Amino acid sequence: MFRKTIVLLNLRSNVLQLRHNSSDVGFIGIGNMGTRMTTNMVNKGLKLKVYDIDSAAARSVKGATPVNSPKEAAQNVKVVITMLPDSSIVREAVSGKDGILEGIDKNGLHVDCSTCEPKFAQELYQFAKENGYRFLDAPVSGGVTGAQAATLTFMVGGDKPNVDFVEPILLTAGSRVVHCGNSGGGQIAKLCNNLLLAASMTAVCEAMNLGVKMGLDPKLLASIINTSTGRCWSSETYSPVPGLMPNVPSSNGYQGGFQMKLTAKDLALAQSTALSCGAPLPVTGLVHQLYRVMMTKGYGNKDFSSVYEFFQTS
Amino acid sequence: MFRKTIVLLNLRSNVLQLRHNSSDVGFIGIGNMGTRMTTNMVNKGLKLKVYDIDSAAARSVKGATPVNSPKEAAQNVKVVITMLPDSSIVREAVSGKDGILEGIDKNGLHVDCSTCEPKFAQELYQFAKENGYRFLDAPVSGGVTGAQAATLTFMVGGDKPNVDFVEPILLTAGSRVVHCGNSGGGQIAKLCNNLLLAASMTAVCEAMNLGVKMGLDPKLLASIINTSTGRCWSSETYSPVPGLMPNVPSSNGYQGGFQMKLTAKDLALAQSTALSCGAPLPVTGLVHQLYRVMMTKGYGNKDFSSVYEFFQTS
Amino acid sequence: MFRKTIVLLNLRSNVLQLRHNSSDVGFIGIGNMGTRMTTNMVNKGLKLKVYDIDSAAARSVKGATPVNSPKEAAQNVKVVITMLPDSSIVREAVSGKDGILEGIDKNGLHVDCSTCEPKFAQELYQFAKENGYRFLDAPVSGGVTGAQAATLTFMVGGDKPNVDFVEPILLTAGSRVVHCGNSGGGQIAKLCNNLLLAASMTAVCEAMNLGVKMGLDPKLLASIINTSTGRCWSSETYSPVPGLMPNVPSSNGYQGGFQMKLTAKDLALAQSTALSCGAPLPVTGLVHQLYRVMMTKGYGNKDFSSVYEFFQTS
Amino acid sequence: MFRKTIVLLNLRSNVLQLRHNSSDVGFIGIGNMGTRMTTNMVNKGLKLKVYDIDSAAARSVKGATPVNSPKEAAQNVKVVITMLPDSSIVREAVSGKDGILEGIDKNGLHVDCSTCEPKFAQELYQFAKENGYRFLDAPVSGGVTGAQAATLTFMVGGDKPNVDFVEPILLTAGSRVVHCGNSGGGQIAKLCNNLLLAASMTAVCEAMNLGVKMGLDPKLLASIINTSTGRCWSSETYSPVPGLMPNVPSSNGYQGGFQMKLTAKDLALAQSTALSCGAPLPVTGLVHQLYRVMMTKGYGNKDFSSVYEFFQTS
Repeated sequence: MFRKTIVLLNLRSNVLQLRHNSSDVGFIGIGNMGTRMTTNMVNKGLKLKVYDIDSAAARSVKGATPVNSPKEAAQNVKVVITMLPDSSIVREAVSGKDGILEGIDKNGLHVDCSTCEPKFAQELYQFAKENGYRFLDAPVSGGVTGAQAATLTFMVGGDKPNVDFVEPILLTAGSRVVHCGNSGGGQIAKLCNNLLLAASMTAVCEAMNLGVKMGLDPKLLASIINTSTGRCWSSETYSPVPGLMPNVPSSNGYQGGFQMKLTAKDLALAQSTALSCGAPLPVTGLVHQLYRVMMTKGYGNKDFSSVYEFFQTS
Repeated sequence: MFRKTIVLLNLRSNVLQLRHNSSDVGFIGIGNMGTRMTTNMVNKGLKLKVYDIDSAAARSVKGATPVNSPKEAAQNVKVVITMLPDSSIVREAVSGKDGILEGIDKNGLHVDCSTCEPKFAQELYQFAKENGYRFLDAPVSGGVTGAQAATLTFMVGGDKPNVDFVEPILLTAGSRVVHCGNSGGGQIAKLCNNLLLAASMTAVCEAMNLGVKMGLDPKLLASIINTSTGRCWSSETYSPVPGLMPNVPSSNGYQGGFQMKLTAKDLALAQSTALSCGAPLPVTGLVHQLYRVMMTKGYGNKDFSSVYEFFQTS
Repeated sequence: MFRKTIVLLNLRSNVLQLRHNSSDVGFIGIGNMGTRMTTNMVNKGLKLKVYDIDSAAARSVKGATPVNSPKEAAQNVKVVITMLPDSSIVREAVSGKDGILEGIDKNGLHVDCSTCEPKFAQELYQFAKENGYRFLDAPVSGGVTGAQAATLTFMVGGDKPNVDFVEPILLTAGSRVVHCGNSGGGQIAKLCNNLLLAASMTAVCEAMNLGVKMGLDPKLLASIINTSTGRCWSSETYSPVPGLMPNVPSSNGYQGGFQMKLTAKDLALAQSTALSCGAPLPVTGLVHQLYRVMMTKGYGNKDFSSVYEFFQTS
Repeated sequence: MFRKTIVLLNLRSNVLQLRHNSSDVGFIGIGNMGTRMTTNMVNKGLKLKVYDIDSAAARSVKGATPVNSPKEAAQNVKVVITMLPDSSIVREAVSGKDGILEGIDKNGLHVDCSTCEPKFAQELYQFAKENGYRFLDAPVSGGVTGAQAATLTFMVGGDKPNVDFVEPILLTAGSRVVHCGNSGGGQIAKLCNNLLLAASMTAVCEAMNLGVKMGLDPKLLASIINTSTGRCWSSETYSPVPGLMPNVPSSNGYQGGFQMKLTAKDLALAQSTALSCGAPLPVTGLVHQLYRVMMTKGYGNKDFSSVYEFFQTS
């Protein structure tokens, strides 16, 4: 607690030292996540330049300065952050026309919060090095809810001093920064966690559905599992069975939460990462296929716990 | 705490009221589990008759009286307990020659701690009813370690008064008795928990293997997962990665623990149960097949966390 | 050809030699298959007694004599044939009250055309031996269409002389009798063939769907596959893509053909058979689970090629 | 037959019309496939320039002229053919330093026989168009054996006139040229066929293994399957069971044939292609994972029918 207070004071003093026309953060990608993250950053006192290909989105962030290109977003800032849908869009933002490369200061810092393949992060790291600036991969967990509440976890790969430097800034949009080792490590950690999350949630759906179909009371079964060896984050805090817990997507028609199409995207990234290193992922592969079947049935925008609903007779 | 003390006092007074030649418990099946359970029961002051098809096993339980048949084990006891490898053997012990049926007192109680299909439990319940005695299914979790330490959980299906009656006796061999609803409910709960356990452990193996192959430190990755949404019993207390935790099978050559052939047996029971009620079990089915492949490669007697080892290049 | 003519002549002469009140065949189970099989048998000149638990079904077979029990069906016949939904019903027909056992002649022959587990066939074989009669397992392939057209294949397990004896009778309802070795062999062969059928059909659905979604003309793609290494019975004669072939279920709303619930039943039998001998069946297991998911969505009565439809976005 | 003769005559006359220093074919990639294909082309009278990053490989093709770069290979030829391990290498050969782009004639033709993602083929097609030359994707089936015997099938995507133009040249290295529609169509067709091949072969392994483990004679079971609905190319011509057929990899220690690591590569391409169009591939996904598990156990260089061996107890 104490350390964070100090850090925030330092942050403020840094803010005071900003050059004319400079900002703390250039933020590129004002979507579901970016809107909430930038709003929190502004509310915590940071000075932001924001860019989105949809200029209306950029203008919607109150207290931030909309700019016209990634290049502008990258100029005269402590850190330029990208939060974009996939690696090809990040690549364009970095090295495309009017991209980050054209604007970033010598020795500047680019932090990519998008979820991408680890090897892409490593490429960006190398590219930054060759072009005289610094790079960190920093994908987040916590989803839209975490972004809203500023409780995101940032899983960061890259050089430690850069992680230390950017930590107080990231903590204005999240509650935890974990250094996951060398460049790409943030992406690797995120993908490993998320495949495990998807698999255990799906297995919770199988277990709860079997038990309920066989006549067990779902509340009773959940309590047994949660005090036994089957317990996991999904069973304890995010039950896929409607009505068991008040504030989870399953009790709200599987709206909100972690959209299946996004979970599926992470599993696809995990698969292609696994291909590169020869790691088998049989359970992950199956869950991914199940999601893809479900996405043909309109589940892409529902929470990933809707596997439970999909198992029901309809 | 207070309630248990009272219960134990009641138990003692019950013990004092035993008729001549009568015992508290007739215990059938003195294998890895039965040996430890009966030893604990004897040590807690219960009077036991024990039977096993291997009479040497029965004689090995110090302080218990070996008998010559399930029939004898079932005579003049408060409860006759079966702890046997599968339902066909339980069936033989119940209705075969010199079986429980021939010996059990009118209104006697048979508690089956074997892991069997729920519908088999329901058959036994019905059979008991028709033959004037009572029945509970009470499979356990905790394995050999839990049996040794008397920390088993009994998941019990059947009539509540019978559960209450037998609870103090079961607590001499375990630490928890959970009433899981009607007959068969104990088996259902166990199978649901165990399929979730098997699936989440396998997914932990996939996640940890992927991360380590991609260059992450396993300790770091485990700590990230365990403070994130991927956390589960397997990741938190029973890491499949050798060397991360001191007292788990992975740090001991995958010896001890929950043998894969037994996990596979539970998954097969879950599958045939699911067949009967139309519940899909895709992840469970895959894990089961993976185990069966591994069993052709000598993994049947290793702990079920050895999937991690199996994923290594050899 | 010539041989079959002779056989049929022999058959007729056998028919002439029937004792008073005796018949050629006692047939138990007048469902979708049994109705067609018995009709063909009658049309080929055989004398039949027929039994079904639904007596109206038995009375519906023109030219056959309905009887009141499996016992009556088994009396004074050359062969008593069962064609029933599952092994528990076969068991009841054999050893239940008024069952086959009570009626069958000394040295009589029971042929079970139902699809059951191989070990059940072996039990029936043993049971027959102990009770002084003979037994063959003879599940069929060809489905309702084959039953209608008398083009069924009978896969027969048991003693060769019995196969030879019953072959001319079976050929009145089918076009091929294959001796598959010892008792149970007919069931084993059928399950092996059918799991391969289900897997290759599902893979055809995946391949055709992928190609069409990527813009290939389905007719062109089918022709490439059918002259390449991907060709199989499903791709060549039973395309799952609507409109490619005129007389297959896919061109008729997936009606008729091999109902998914029946394919699923065979896969479940294959799985439990595989359990008994330690054979892994990963692909079969996955296909089975896919079917079970589809059965929750109303596909149970559709042809098993409807996986193609299920993969479409809806 | 007649048409082909004419075509070959035309081909010869074309050869006669070659300008000084020009060749019929520039061939890039002299590996297992390329060596055999170029040798056949030379033997059929074509004039070849050949390039490989390993110059010794290029020099090993008797009768062909080794050159020093893709650029040189592309100059003054009727067609420049690439046969390379993956798309990144093809990309380098096309647009890297001294690449095809720098050498290819205006309106020249590039034919890529490598197996790559369809969308990559479409990119190359577009790239060629923008740079004033023509492109076809033409992956092959038939493997090393087909390359040796000049019986490859070329599955070709792109504009029909170009397919007609190159057909006689390709037929010097193969026996069939199939036009699969627009650009990318050759790749799509190949991936669809190969996923079906891999899935049906794996299912043949499951079926044969189950039958044999249950006591059936493998020859008998194979004959039943091959006259039934389970029959497929793998069961009829390429049995995975050692000893059933003389000249297949299974009878030769699973050496030669279609290496599992290459089958796995095709399945990975099929998966990423399926991702792009939303087609689920559950069976393919499972087979891919099985291969990846097997590749950790030394099966990468064995024929893909070695799944049968992997299922054996060891």
